[in-house]
Amino acid sequence: MLIECVPNVSEGRRAEIIEAMAVAIRGVTGVRLLDHSSDASHNRSVFTLVGHAEGVRNAVLALAERAVADIDLRTHRGEHPRLGAVDVVPFVPIEGVTMMECVELARQVGAEIARRFNVPVFLYEEASVNPARKNLEDIRRGEFEGLAAKMRAPEWAPDFGPATPHPSAGATVVGARMPLIAYNINLATDRLDVAKKIAAAIRQSSGGFRFVKAAGFRLESRGIVQVSMNLTNYEKTPIFRVFETVKREAARYGVAILESEIVGLVPSAGLTGAAEFYLQLEGFNADQVLENKLRQD
Amino acid sequence: MLIECVPNVSEGRRAEIIEAMAVAIRGVTGVRLLDHSSDASHNRSVFTLVGHAEGVRNAVLALAERAVADIDLRTHRGEHPRLGAVDVVPFVPIEGVTMMECVELARQVGAEIARRFNVPVFLYEEASVNPARKNLEDIRRGEFEGLAAKMRAPEWAPDFGPATPHPSAGATVVGARMPLIAYNINLATDRLDVAKKIAAAIRQSSGGFRFVKAAGFRLESRGIVQVSMNLTNYEKTPIFRVFETVKREAARYGVAILESEIVGLVPSAGLTGAAEFYLQLEGFNADQVLENKLRQD
Repeated sequence: MLIECVPNVSEGRRAEIIEAMAVAIRGVTGVRLLDHSSDASHNRSVFTLVGHAEGVRNAVLALAERAVADIDLRTHRGEHPRLGAVDVVPFVPIEGVTMMECVELARQVGAEIARRFNVPVFLYEEASVNPARKNLEDIRRGEFEGLAAKMRAPEWAPDFGPATPHPSAGATVVGARMPLIAYNINLATDRLDVAKKIAAAIRQSSGGFRFVKAAGFRLESRGIVQVSMNLTNYEKTPIFRVFETVKREAARYGVAILESEIVGLVPSAGLTGAAEFYLQLEGFNADQVLENKLRQD
Repeated sequence: MLIECVPNVSEGRRAEIIEAMAVAIRGVTGVRLLDHSSDASHNRSVFTLVGHAEGVRNAVLALAERAVADIDLRTHRGEHPRLGAVDVVPFVPIEGVTMMECVELARQVGAEIARRFNVPVFLYEEASVNPARKNLEDIRRGEFEGLAAKMRAPEWAPDFGPATPHPSAGATVVGARMPLIAYNINLATDRLDVAKKIAAAIRQSSGGFRFVKAAGFRLESRGIVQVSMNLTNYEKTPIFRVFETVKREAARYGVAILESEIVGLVPSAGLTGAAEFYLQLEGFNADQVLENKLRQD
């Protein structure tokens, strides 16, 4: 069983504080810290953990203990919107685990953060129990500075913990979502209007695929344009379907695809799904991938 | 670093002997026994191990110790050709290891088998040092029963060990090769001639791709035909190129591809290579596959 967790913490400048959080995570068994990166202008750090449910749960709690002790939102400044010291904690199913199990885990960990650190917790995305509070941006609107006022409204009572913000650590948003794939397609043209029209055709907000966010950009240095995307559920809106649709839409303007690129990490199944589609593979099973067998008991 | 090793042993009937060999492998650290299967009519067992060089080496030696002690070729009967108790030991590069490193390992393990068990060893495929002795079938021709006579010829002096066969354990063939992918493409037709013509077009022996073996078969129960293949080097002759060529050749006869199938295991890179091709992925790196990161230090 593999669960990914990507906690975002409101500290991106003080190296010794960030390192202490990484050390806290590394001290937990059953979980691996794959990566962590900090942005000074955002004043924010992102940790990428993978492990089984128990390992990931304990790592998040160890990280939260340090973050709540070391971060004070009253003096925190940064460009990125934030609500708390531990700002947002998404749990992501990778392999051998259902979304529902990640939702359960998110709710358990949310309740535990509230209990141990006296921090109010809001559930979001798949873990949300309130349809009006599914979206992270809605929950975070007003930020830490507006939180005490916001929480006075009954519809902003937290899912767990006290009815008012923690004085220094604010509130934490905990949830479950599918892995996000950052995917770009570069077009063999400098026509920005073509990239923008294709982005509009494929993204959910303007009638496209449900799990695609997209925008058209110019890549000035190369004299070409790009359709830049986030794929928020590669099982239901797979990479190959998006690629083929972009290709077809581009052809309507006489434009070819130059190349595509995956930015950062992708679950193995995101790529083998494309191989299955194009090779018309029948009866293929992830257990046939040699490397997957190695991680089984 | 991941090396696969697939030793073939001349015992497929006596369950307790086979189990003792599996136990010997499982007792070695740094290696995993992914699978083992036995065929009674062949009177032969195949073990699939994966690990780092040291682990795989020690597992093969532990297996050989049991096999040489427990198997007597003088009384062994089976349908599959064989030369020794430990019949053939191929080392296969999977990840983070070069073919040359697998060749080195094969030669080390071959020398060690000869030294410890007094069994003559022939090197084959990539590990061969004699162009006339690269092919396994050539080395095994005449089998155990003809081995003593064969080895009297100077060109059949072994690469390691005594100049005559081990009385009960015969000789062992050790080498290195790429992973083999068993790949079939089913055609939407019952015309066997089409499958046979396509097989001839793509296999090396009749002018096709260098690392393809292929034949056309009828799948009686389904009323269709199949191009059945072994891909012996998926890096140099990738799956997608074979698939696209079969598709094009079939179209020439007005026939479509119904589906394809991978039989057994496939290295992850065999499938992500197809995703890279069809999605026109630029700058993609195996480290971007989340599951691959998990196995790194």
